[in-house]
Amino acid sequence: MSATRYTYLGPAGTFTEAALRTLPEAGTRELVPLASVPAVLDAVRAGEAAGAFVPVENSVEGAVTATSDELATGKPLMIYREVLLPIAFALLVRPGTELTDIKTVTSHPVAQPQVRRWLAANLPDARWESAASNADGARLVQEGRHDGAFAGAFAAPIYGLDVLVDDIHDAENATTRFVLVGRPGRVSSPTGADKTSMVVWLPDDHPGALLELLQEFAVRGVNLMRIESRPTGEGLGNYCFLIDCEGHLSERRVSEALMGLKRICPQVRFLGSYPRADHSTPTPQRPGTRDEDFSTASDWLSRCLDGRGEL
Amino acid sequence: MSATRYTYLGPAGTFTEAALRTLPEAGTRELVPLASVPAVLDAVRAGEAAGAFVPVENSVEGAVTATSDELATGKPLMIYREVLLPIAFALLVRPGTELTDIKTVTSHPVAQPQVRRWLAANLPDARWESAASNADGARLVQEGRHDGAFAGAFAAPIYGLDVLVDDIHDAENATTRFVLVGRPGRVSSPTGADKTSMVVWLPDDHPGALLELLQEFAVRGVNLMRIESRPTGEGLGNYCFLIDCEGHLSERRVSEALMGLKRICPQVRFLGSYPRADHSTPTPQRPGTRDEDFSTASDWLSRCLDGRGEL
Amino acid sequence: MSATRYTYLGPAGTFTEAALRTLPEAGTRELVPLASVPAVLDAVRAGEAAGAFVPVENSVEGAVTATSDELATGKPLMIYREVLLPIAFALLVRPGTELTDIKTVTSHPVAQPQVRRWLAANLPDARWESAASNADGARLVQEGRHDGAFAGAFAAPIYGLDVLVDDIHDAENATTRFVLVGRPGRVSSPTGADKTSMVVWLPDDHPGALLELLQEFAVRGVNLMRIESRPTGEGLGNYCFLIDCEGHLSERRVSEALMGLKRICPQVRFLGSYPRADHSTPTPQRPGTRDEDFSTASDWLSRCLDGRGEL
Amino acid sequence: MSATRYTYLGPAGTFTEAALRTLPEAGTRELVPLASVPAVLDAVRAGEAAGAFVPVENSVEGAVTATSDELATGKPLMIYREVLLPIAFALLVRPGTELTDIKTVTSHPVAQPQVRRWLAANLPDARWESAASNADGARLVQEGRHDGAFAGAFAAPIYGLDVLVDDIHDAENATTRFVLVGRPGRVSSPTGADKTSMVVWLPDDHPGALLELLQEFAVRGVNLMRIESRPTGEGLGNYCFLIDCEGHLSERRVSEALMGLKRICPQVRFLGSYPRADHSTPTPQRPGTRDEDFSTASDWLSRCLDGRGEL
Repeated sequence: MSATRYTYLGPAGTFTEAALRTLPEAGTRELVPLASVPAVLDAVRAGEAAGAFVPVENSVEGAVTATSDELATGKPLMIYREVLLPIAFALLVRPGTELTDIKTVTSHPVAQPQVRRWLAANLPDARWESAASNADGARLVQEGRHDGAFAGAFAAPIYGLDVLVDDIHDAENATTRFVLVGRPGRVSSPTGADKTSMVVWLPDDHPGALLELLQEFAVRGVNLMRIESRPTGEGLGNYCFLIDCEGHLSERRVSEALMGLKRICPQVRFLGSYPRADHSTPTPQRPGTRDEDFSTASDWLSRCLDGRGEL
Repeated sequence: MSATRYTYLGPAGTFTEAALRTLPEAGTRELVPLASVPAVLDAVRAGEAAGAFVPVENSVEGAVTATSDELATGKPLMIYREVLLPIAFALLVRPGTELTDIKTVTSHPVAQPQVRRWLAANLPDARWESAASNADGARLVQEGRHDGAFAGAFAAPIYGLDVLVDDIHDAENATTRFVLVGRPGRVSSPTGADKTSMVVWLPDDHPGALLELLQEFAVRGVNLMRIESRPTGEGLGNYCFLIDCEGHLSERRVSEALMGLKRICPQVRFLGSYPRADHSTPTPQRPGTRDEDFSTASDWLSRCLDGRGEL
Repeated sequence: MSATRYTYLGPAGTFTEAALRTLPEAGTRELVPLASVPAVLDAVRAGEAAGAFVPVENSVEGAVTATSDELATGKPLMIYREVLLPIAFALLVRPGTELTDIKTVTSHPVAQPQVRRWLAANLPDARWESAASNADGARLVQEGRHDGAFAGAFAAPIYGLDVLVDDIHDAENATTRFVLVGRPGRVSSPTGADKTSMVVWLPDDHPGALLELLQEFAVRGVNLMRIESRPTGEGLGNYCFLIDCEGHLSERRVSEALMGLKRICPQVRFLGSYPRADHSTPTPQRPGTRDEDFSTASDWLSRCLDGRGEL
Repeated sequence: MSATRYTYLGPAGTFTEAALRTLPEAGTRELVPLASVPAVLDAVRAGEAAGAFVPVENSVEGAVTATSDELATGKPLMIYREVLLPIAFALLVRPGTELTDIKTVTSHPVAQPQVRRWLAANLPDARWESAASNADGARLVQEGRHDGAFAGAFAAPIYGLDVLVDDIHDAENATTRFVLVGRPGRVSSPTGADKTSMVVWLPDDHPGALLELLQEFAVRGVNLMRIESRPTGEGLGNYCFLIDCEGHLSERRVSEALMGLKRICPQVRFLGSYPRADHSTPTPQRPGTRDEDFSTASDWLSRCLDGRGEL
């Protein structure tokens, strides 16, 4: 039954599954791996699943553009949750393999830049062969087609492999961000540490439009957390922007900024307001931008219209 | 009875009275000249008059600071109407006086820079003596104490004088702006070509505060028509700003801008929304800033909160 | 001989003279009081004096518009020094006069708002009569035409009067700012705590021009200290702005901002860079806006043109 | 010999080679295909080639992040030329194959979204199998492993294939942008229609930094053509920006903007100024931003320092 089913970008045994399993409700859901981001999301669009779990960006590799493009221009979906997963690779081998036995290593191409320095230092002569996913790389090692696979340590038991080396990551703080996506629905209540995602198309032929867009946020004291440009498909030089900002749509500073965008941009797609997964404290709000400041100003305005602004 | 009484900056026979008489209702009001801007306004504050008519600024001399300061920091009043009066002086003389007879001329000090070039060309040897008002200058000529007075031609019959030369004005388009002020009350309906006046105090010790203030207008496409700085009385370097902008408080672009100011500034005083007296067409509104754009955005936002933003 | 002569706004015995005498060189100059700001400045323009000393603004009354207009649109002059003088009035009387004897008081009209509350509390029944200057008020008391004059205590001996009450000032920190003006010449060296004055005309028919003007300062981290609008004389709604900013024209942040104004505005008049008279520490400079930051960036740019930007 | 060698992202027969061959000098160069963007660029870094030709962005797929990251954080290189190539696919088959014979099609994964709608309409049952490149797909068809390959029509003769259908492209105006990259060197002369590329790192923990960055361009009237965010590798939420703007580094508006960035950002990498490959007219320059406006302002400033600003 779809209400208890979550699809995710498979196969099983990848970091995506590991991230998904950090969600409390994952234990009571049927978790279904699918082969591509569009497939994962289409299952939700078609009503075959209640949620879809996909990677959004990686601190080393950047945006997962398949996710960006589906969210920006595919049939509308909304983000309800985000998960941050620190990424560290294990080198998985068949039992008995030693470091000196390793002639070929494999993993998803995205893993390569994250282990390049470790390889240069520890296996300078090993040949890299890309696999379709980290888990698929593990399977290829299981089948004897490669000697070592970079994957999450959690993939080892699935494929009957051993963890020869753990915690490999060239970059400190390598993290992947995932989102739980569903059909559009009521935005859940603010938690006090939320973020809001949207896609914004700029007005045509209007130099300075990006600056005006950012000023809609700035004038209301809303900090941007991320901005990603994507082509609109209408020829080079035409971009839309996926934007994450601090705050929740039910906060006045955020809603007024979004209405500002809606007024000046040809198209704005709201992608959701949801709890921030980082545990850093949100930037302190600029004075005058809390909801009570908006209420006070609104009350004052009503009084002004009646000639009682000074009371 | 106060409901039919308007006070104005006297004495009778000045440009202020002439401007006041351009208001349709002036014919049915008791018009009372008083000696100073504070006196004129205090009569309204005390309930002794329904309206007070005072000059605000002159295109040659600038702001009438007594009016600015009363409106900014006196007991609250509101502006309900503005009048623009082209200023051209007549040279008033006792019957029989010729140009060559004129040894001394007089008028209010404000008149002097507006007739200086005419004097240099036509009466280079005449001595200037300041009077308390243009009308008072006419009286002094009537009494024989000076030979010529610069005043409105309308003052001639009042003082038994002749208009020797008419339409004297060094600057083209010399104009004085007057306002009709009343006790705070309900803002009248927008006419489609309105302006809104306010006083804004900047946050302390915040370089860039003036820029932020102007951005509250700019981001909503509201054009400024005038900005005047006045000392707050709390020491050099502390200013408040009297601002006139296009539009009416009941327009969303204007009300949102004012609420923005209210949120970031320690004090904002709304001085009124009233019809523009110039007959120039208002600057076309920037796309996305009309009331229907605000409504559309607001409807969209409500739908977003329900997950129906894309409908 | 003109090189040792300074003119100032007279008569003798006013705050202007007192302020002028705080300048170290005043002791070796011939100090000549003249009757009006234009007269004081014209003496310098004509080469009859080396310096002219005039009030610019008062923390209670605001700008001295005669000075503003002369500096903005008169034959060019430059500011070389500023003086701040705390304003406190003494009540001067003929020897033997007691408070209860005082029926009429006098002074320059500008003094009235600064002593109004004191009068209400101490001499509620005294009648106010304006004089042409504070010193002139003292003279009228000396002649027996009024009973008390508000003036600087330093005026008492000049007119044979006694100081009946000292240190009268309704507003705390009432201060007048004066400038020493000369014919245009080489800007003196920066002292580390300077200010720069200018007059800027906005481009025609360009809503948002004032905002763009302020951004030329903001983007280079230059704080404004004062902005005063004055009519251009070309009809209501046309203003120029007298601006004081932090810093010296020889600092790169300031010179680049002024060149930016020069490029976008139809007219900019530089009025001088000179030491700040307040003893408050200048606002700390924003990182990246010191002269060495400009030099570093300029060196980098030269290297970029040669393909050595990364060295 | 390296001076006549250009490397490019291979294999031969791809759009990259076709784009490279549009450069006039390509006919006299040894063109060497290499397997990856890093390999292509490293050959230039090592002095083994004079130029490297790589894709930068595609109007459907967006940025080629391997190129972005190499240019942003690899050993410094500079861009000397750009090429825009309209992308239209041919369906290549073995001679004799008809549309109804096609069971499997192949190409580089990037091609898939660009032919998806064509496939759905014309070969709804064909199975897609990704290949390492478009040219590699053609080779797989030659070898009989797939029935049709989407590639440039120019690849047909190389692999002994026929063009069954030409000019397939879901999106109108699908275009790929390529750059010719070399070791850092002197920037070539402006042509009047140039662009400038750079990478900018934002100051830490500074909400609003992106806005300030854009204002450095806006205040000098420099239009942005593209902005791409890339992770810095220092954890989620840390981005650098690859920016293309109108104009040439030798233009004052551009150089002043870049120096502004250099002053406020912890790191700026200049990537080159080079002729625009699009034939659209550059946006007209904002008044006051041409080189002669900068010269005029600079001359005026020198005169101001000497007291001759008004001459």
